[in-house]
Amino acid sequence: MNASTDEHFRSKDLLGLRFLSTGEITHILDVAEQFRGLNLRAIKKVPTLRGKSVVHLFLEPSTRTRTSFDIAAKRLSADTFSISGSGSSTSKGETLVDTARNLAAMHPDIIVVRHRRAGGALMLSQALPGTCVINAGDGACEHPTQGLLDLLTIRRALGGFRGRVVTIVGDILHSRVARSNVWGLLKVGAAVRVCGPPTLIPPGLKELGVEVHHDLQEAIAGADVIMALRIQQERIPRGGHFFPTLREYSRLYGLNRDKLRNWARKDVVIMHPGPVNRGVELEPEVVDGDWSVILDQVENGVAVRMASMYLVLGGERAAAREGRG
Amino acid sequence: MNASTDEHFRSKDLLGLRFLSTGEITHILDVAEQFRGLNLRAIKKVPTLRGKSVVHLFLEPSTRTRTSFDIAAKRLSADTFSISGSGSSTSKGETLVDTARNLAAMHPDIIVVRHRRAGGALMLSQALPGTCVINAGDGACEHPTQGLLDLLTIRRALGGFRGRVVTIVGDILHSRVARSNVWGLLKVGAAVRVCGPPTLIPPGLKELGVEVHHDLQEAIAGADVIMALRIQQERIPRGGHFFPTLREYSRLYGLNRDKLRNWARKDVVIMHPGPVNRGVELEPEVVDGDWSVILDQVENGVAVRMASMYLVLGGERAAAREGRG
Amino acid sequence: MNASTDEHFRSKDLLGLRFLSTGEITHILDVAEQFRGLNLRAIKKVPTLRGKSVVHLFLEPSTRTRTSFDIAAKRLSADTFSISGSGSSTSKGETLVDTARNLAAMHPDIIVVRHRRAGGALMLSQALPGTCVINAGDGACEHPTQGLLDLLTIRRALGGFRGRVVTIVGDILHSRVARSNVWGLLKVGAAVRVCGPPTLIPPGLKELGVEVHHDLQEAIAGADVIMALRIQQERIPRGGHFFPTLREYSRLYGLNRDKLRNWARKDVVIMHPGPVNRGVELEPEVVDGDWSVILDQVENGVAVRMASMYLVLGGERAAAREGRG
Repeated sequence: MNASTDEHFRSKDLLGLRFLSTGEITHILDVAEQFRGLNLRAIKKVPTLRGKSVVHLFLEPSTRTRTSFDIAAKRLSADTFSISGSGSSTSKGETLVDTARNLAAMHPDIIVVRHRRAGGALMLSQALPGTCVINAGDGACEHPTQGLLDLLTIRRALGGFRGRVVTIVGDILHSRVARSNVWGLLKVGAAVRVCGPPTLIPPGLKELGVEVHHDLQEAIAGADVIMALRIQQERIPRGGHFFPTLREYSRLYGLNRDKLRNWARKDVVIMHPGPVNRGVELEPEVVDGDWSVILDQVENGVAVRMASMYLVLGGERAAAREGRG
Repeated sequence: MNASTDEHFRSKDLLGLRFLSTGEITHILDVAEQFRGLNLRAIKKVPTLRGKSVVHLFLEPSTRTRTSFDIAAKRLSADTFSISGSGSSTSKGETLVDTARNLAAMHPDIIVVRHRRAGGALMLSQALPGTCVINAGDGACEHPTQGLLDLLTIRRALGGFRGRVVTIVGDILHSRVARSNVWGLLKVGAAVRVCGPPTLIPPGLKELGVEVHHDLQEAIAGADVIMALRIQQERIPRGGHFFPTLREYSRLYGLNRDKLRNWARKDVVIMHPGPVNRGVELEPEVVDGDWSVILDQVENGVAVRMASMYLVLGGERAAAREGRG
Repeated sequence: MNASTDEHFRSKDLLGLRFLSTGEITHILDVAEQFRGLNLRAIKKVPTLRGKSVVHLFLEPSTRTRTSFDIAAKRLSADTFSISGSGSSTSKGETLVDTARNLAAMHPDIIVVRHRRAGGALMLSQALPGTCVINAGDGACEHPTQGLLDLLTIRRALGGFRGRVVTIVGDILHSRVARSNVWGLLKVGAAVRVCGPPTLIPPGLKELGVEVHHDLQEAIAGADVIMALRIQQERIPRGGHFFPTLREYSRLYGLNRDKLRNWARKDVVIMHPGPVNRGVELEPEVVDGDWSVILDQVENGVAVRMASMYLVLGGERAAAREGRG
């Protein structure tokens, strides 16, 4: 990789796309592009992070994201350690910062953290000046590696972002995926629309330059990409009534073949962060159809996470200092 | 290992002994025999699967089998990733095939799958043309690596299979271990008897050439091997009354020193897939006695799983193609 | 490391400080001191235990200790396998010894075991003559690596043990940490005081040469080290009423800035095995103050566990035999 472009990422942490410059985002995508190839080889391993310790501190359940990070870390030859909410000392009443300081005393190089509260990763990053922190989702705030893998997937599908229109459909209010995508897409120059029932659209989006829609047909007209969000029954507070029924939601905001044929561009690209509720956000014919790049998103996730771990640790400047590639 | 014999295993998957030829079974046992030695060395590691990713997708709880596969994979230098039922996306309502396709998008080389339904591994294998699938137990259908480790243990104990008699005692109906053993033993030329209460013997065995017994004394007379199956309270459907009480079962079908001395060959070999319910299937004097090869079965399990992973990935043909051993 | 001093540790197991000589304890600390440096390097990995298999058999929940052992093992290049109580065969009614024999049949080199009963590790050690056993806590009996990391932390803070006074405060009765520390501190020549409500002090300590106090002021007067123990609500038997309330406990035995300023040496060292109940055993000003070496304890834990695994496997004698460092 090219040392001069590597200077574009200088932080010890990856907390959110909100905090990244356009140049940093582009640089992460470029590095991820190079790691993509590795995952297609017969021998999927490089010694880049040999002797590094990566802790997966997942205080909210997650298999998919944790596995993606774990595969990424091990393909870079790092050692990994998994700590989940139920088994950890936090369940014995310890505070997040105490848990983190104790972990840090064992000298991990990176802590990948998922936390149920917005700001969890930021708090950790401030408490641990000597440890790299990667946010794997903090409440409804950000999920930066998801945002980056979505950007990589869009760039690979469309060739670039300028002049492109991305419509995000669904529960924008509770979605850290939507938030990271909004920050990222605006920074790289795409136009962003969101669409969902008024109860599920947070305030303040228009001020950022996002088009807000409640009608699906208008929202997807002319869009290059439609990103459907998962209806996360588990994340919507109990007793919250944001839409009448799943069936009603699906009728108004779910995507099927007919809606796409009648309302969308012929070459529209369909994305979803997964796991899909088949028949709610997307009909099976859409999930499995030619429009869909959902599995590309998963594939690109490993590459983006490899790039993120590589770059927070200092990238090739660090590698150069230690005299290894 | 010898390249010509290596041609005997050509499948990308190991789904069941039902689907293997006699030659393939023999070849797997031969390769396993070579890996056995590795497990006795001070340095128990070879670089054979370096840079390969093995996912353990255990949608039914299992520690013993998962650990055996994990030890096997890591001694071959593979990286491993464990996904269990409770934490996985399948618990968020995702289908098995969607879970599998998402995993496959991260480019694992092998998925080891345990599923509560017969046919789970087959379904995965068909959905993932580019990924090797090893069945670690699908419902009451097959548990091929268990069958193979039992065959290896018998071959090591008796020197071969021709003319040998193996009696399987217990709950044949719900046992994937019994099914894999029946297919395997018949293919390698052993005579197979099963014995248990009529409620626990499935139909159709006689047609395959298996002797069916309900009387233990008759069933074990002259047998070279007695394989006692675990009474799996957790696998028998609730409300199912297949035998009156455990005590009654033990009186009729449990093995103790006296029954063996009076009814069995002096040199009979006792097997059990574990964990043993001491005092139910086997009395402690039998578990811990000279007859028992139960711990050999466990030991051979690691070697058989190493051989299975090596062979589904193409064995030394693949190794040769990549220019490494 | 020096081969002659290495002769000081000859056991295949580490079961408790009760069973170690002063020379052995000193030797483990010396080896740990050498491993400490590794944990501060950019590349935190040596090939010492390459090809070795370490099983973490944690039949009581623990994240902190298990993670420390896991980091230690992987930094020595061992492969690790984690088995917890809930998922293991012991939950299917298998005895500890059967579980252990089955594990041993897969030829692990070390089993690290935590068990809810005193003597659990000893039982395993006797059942497995060919496998190294490290006790990671057996009931209220011993937690030797915790004792050793406490000794290392004290030696680093004070320069030595002779003539030093260590006061252990809290629930001595249920604490394996206290027991291991009492054995260890007495062997290396420190004076030991314990302090707590009479209901939480076991009999027999005076006979060992330990001073027993119930008044905190007396107990910490002139002490070089105060080690506060965690009030383990989860370990105190249900219905046991050992002290009226946490608030009452904290008033009498908790440490805050005022008590330390008025009653303790100015340079007193404060320790705690973690996780701290802030406001119960220690006020935040003490946990985070200059007195505290709590995070040093955590840091030293990894080094002590590396030393323990290295030494039970035979240390450099074994390394020499195999022709590797």
